[in-house]
Amino acid sequence: MGTCRGVIKRIAPDAEVIDITHGIPPQDVLQGALVLANTLPYMPTGVHVAIVDPGVGSERKPVALRGADGRLFVGPDNGLLLVAAERLGGVTEAVEIADAAYMLEPVSHTFHGRDIFSPVAAHLAGGVDLGKLGPALDPAGLERLEVPQPSIGETRIRATVLYIDRFGNVQLNVRADQLAQVGIEPGARVEVEAGFERYFASAARTFADARIGDIVLYEDAYANIALAINRGDAARMFSVRVGDELRLTSA
Amino acid sequence: MGTCRGVIKRIAPDAEVIDITHGIPPQDVLQGALVLANTLPYMPTGVHVAIVDPGVGSERKPVALRGADGRLFVGPDNGLLLVAAERLGGVTEAVEIADAAYMLEPVSHTFHGRDIFSPVAAHLAGGVDLGKLGPALDPAGLERLEVPQPSIGETRIRATVLYIDRFGNVQLNVRADQLAQVGIEPGARVEVEAGFERYFASAARTFADARIGDIVLYEDAYANIALAINRGDAARMFSVRVGDELRLTSA
Amino acid sequence: MGTCRGVIKRIAPDAEVIDITHGIPPQDVLQGALVLANTLPYMPTGVHVAIVDPGVGSERKPVALRGADGRLFVGPDNGLLLVAAERLGGVTEAVEIADAAYMLEPVSHTFHGRDIFSPVAAHLAGGVDLGKLGPALDPAGLERLEVPQPSIGETRIRATVLYIDRFGNVQLNVRADQLAQVGIEPGARVEVEAGFERYFASAARTFADARIGDIVLYEDAYANIALAINRGDAARMFSVRVGDELRLTSA
Repeated sequence: MGTCRGVIKRIAPDAEVIDITHGIPPQDVLQGALVLANTLPYMPTGVHVAIVDPGVGSERKPVALRGADGRLFVGPDNGLLLVAAERLGGVTEAVEIADAAYMLEPVSHTFHGRDIFSPVAAHLAGGVDLGKLGPALDPAGLERLEVPQPSIGETRIRATVLYIDRFGNVQLNVRADQLAQVGIEPGARVEVEAGFERYFASAARTFADARIGDIVLYEDAYANIALAINRGDAARMFSVRVGDELRLTSA
Repeated sequence: MGTCRGVIKRIAPDAEVIDITHGIPPQDVLQGALVLANTLPYMPTGVHVAIVDPGVGSERKPVALRGADGRLFVGPDNGLLLVAAERLGGVTEAVEIADAAYMLEPVSHTFHGRDIFSPVAAHLAGGVDLGKLGPALDPAGLERLEVPQPSIGETRIRATVLYIDRFGNVQLNVRADQLAQVGIEPGARVEVEAGFERYFASAARTFADARIGDIVLYEDAYANIALAINRGDAARMFSVRVGDELRLTSA
Repeated sequence: MGTCRGVIKRIAPDAEVIDITHGIPPQDVLQGALVLANTLPYMPTGVHVAIVDPGVGSERKPVALRGADGRLFVGPDNGLLLVAAERLGGVTEAVEIADAAYMLEPVSHTFHGRDIFSPVAAHLAGGVDLGKLGPALDPAGLERLEVPQPSIGETRIRATVLYIDRFGNVQLNVRADQLAQVGIEPGARVEVEAGFERYFASAARTFADARIGDIVLYEDAYANIALAINRGDAARMFSVRVGDELRLTSA
């Protein structure tokens, strides 16, 4: 709902607000972090607010960060912001948001997006200095997420599903150079194991190389390897969900 | 779809349009009214258009209202606007929208959002006076919704589900002071009856007081008491829907 | 996700971006084309980007078109843009988008919305001339969709479902004057056959003419005949989907 946008516009009427997505599954901090990291390079430099916040109301700190490339980040200190910030050069300054003058009072126990993060972002967009929000934090002490890494063997990769898009395409935590390490190059035939099921896919440069209904492994628009069914729904066919493991073997 | 936004922008190119939500269930006027009342205090003062309009094409009037705090409201005369307008100080002026000069012609029988409410809102945003839209109405004669009230006994409250959010949290038509009347204070143990099922919940100040999987009653960000499962989906677990009754007893 | 909006704003910070919809079913080019044609007359004149692009990465061309009324269109050459452009007066100039200077490089194989169409639209909004994007194309050679036409007999129309809205109303490829040809006028009783099922509906001017639960045929807000259940979900009751055939007979 547009409540956060309304809060921002009351404080900073001239700020332009761009929504990245409202589609992160509830409480999925890792997926929020990965979507933020994937999309932020395409966004104008600005104040970036992200809220996936299962710890709202607990001791987790609200934070604001300055990135090496001049972007500002606002959100909970639960790792959500750091994947993006580090891909864009790292964090040069961090503060705990503490000064109530930049919040909506009374601050609710459950909706810091409205009462803390949006008003703080609006004040930053309006020119308030990061240092005014509260005490400095050591960037090295910020909470970090563990982003799952693939396990790469001689001829096989164990991959984890990072994301499933609205077409049912299954994004994996694998890059093209890692596929090449196990001998899977465009054109190769690949055995895909999901649970106890086993399928054969083609490593393809594009969907256009595949016929309708073909199972393909391809490099997606964020340089991740993804599994798809040309004009079909791979996630449904393979019954896979975010966090599941797939095994890819050169066949 | 952005049709209404397009209509507004053609008439008032400089108007800024903020969406509150497109997620009200079809025909649910009460839920639309409650969401509007909850979110409007966070929105900039402006022209507020709301459309949940099962009576479109019938005799129900299209209306425009001036609120005591200077906000303008545009929508069907079915009670949708009044819950918000009254919480914000009441209606000081009301008109029936009648002058076709402020509509898109021909007016369809089924999409007054596009053909009446959006163009009227755009004209109001552009400076047209409310009184020009049509004949004055007595605010006391506007249609009203009956907002369900809790039934408060000695030790038990019968509550109605007003809203279920995307996390599955169940908002009730009960405030914290009403819970206190039956002896339920933060920290208390509460018996929750939903249909023939019975559960025990804790009255909590925040989710942070609860362990994962705990059933909690808490005051939500709109000062309503809500029932939740910490990091779970309470609406699914209790199989409750908007309009259902729950009974809360101090245990 | 707002990636395309971000891309546009980086190139043309002052451009105003209006979303028409993000709700077209994956790969459904015809539905995208019809929604674009229905809604564009209500949108300000501008640069209109549309992306439903099952052939991304294949030989299908990215194109930009100038419409007779001054609108510009950007998207894949798969028929998506032409239904709208032709209803608005036709195409007066067409080019293949070829100059990489107006794209984001490297261009991915799967997300031309981000890498080609959005940046091109932003450059056009910023004043770049259509002719600079690439070689001219003959508008007559652009790909066309076949929009299904009704089959009109003496007393019966075979209609195709074009669209189902969020209320479950079923939009047909039939206009009121075509219904009149088979003797179905407002007030008439109509036999509706869907698969092996048969129902009776009333031809109504508005929902207000019908009681709750009545099956009605009415002229929708885009001048198409639609089948609805007053305050119900006709698509679910009739188990129909886009592309299905219905037979309407004066009864």
